[in-house]
Amino acid sequence: MYVLLVYDIREKRVGKMLKLCRRYLNWIQNSVFEGEITEVKLKELLAKAHNFLDTDEDSVLIFKSRSQQWLEKQVVGQEKNKLDTFL
Amino acid sequence: MYVLLVYDIREKRVGKMLKLCRRYLNWIQNSVFEGEITEVKLKELLAKAHNFLDTDEDSVLIFKSRSQQWLEKQVVGQEKNKLDTFL
Repeated sequence: MYVLLVYDIREKRVGKMLKLCRRYLNWIQNSVFEGEITEVKLKELLAKAHNFLDTDEDSVLIFKSRSQQWLEKQVVGQEKNKLDTFL
Repeated sequence: MYVLLVYDIREKRVGKMLKLCRRYLNWIQNSVFEGEITEVKLKELLAKAHNFLDTDEDSVLIFKSRSQQWLEKQVVGQEKNKLDTFL
């Protein structure tokens, strides 16, 4: 399945989440990842995230689509992942 | 159609984008909006955004799905829009 993952996490935990998500998905923008992933791998990612997230403060939203074809992407301005830099 | 809009915009322009997007979509997380919108209304939103965005610096990504049913949403931690506060 194809997923979009966006997170809003306290500064002190952002680095860990960025590092973790990069192992499973593609960084596309500040706190935003996309990519193909299996249900099992997504569960694995979220289980590891639960080790350090504070679910009373942090927010992670995952949008799942059966396939990338069902999700048309439009870019206005910079497509940051092309530069492959991240904040 | 159902859209997800995420932006990564320089601090001095964020307020304007937040105010603009709230008139068309639902704020769900820091720099992330979702909602039903017509192609015409989305074009209108983006045309207005172009008035103040710096497309050499700023990044707006729009993910379009034919319908919300094609996009399953999973929340880990806080669902921020429930509190209806924003940063």
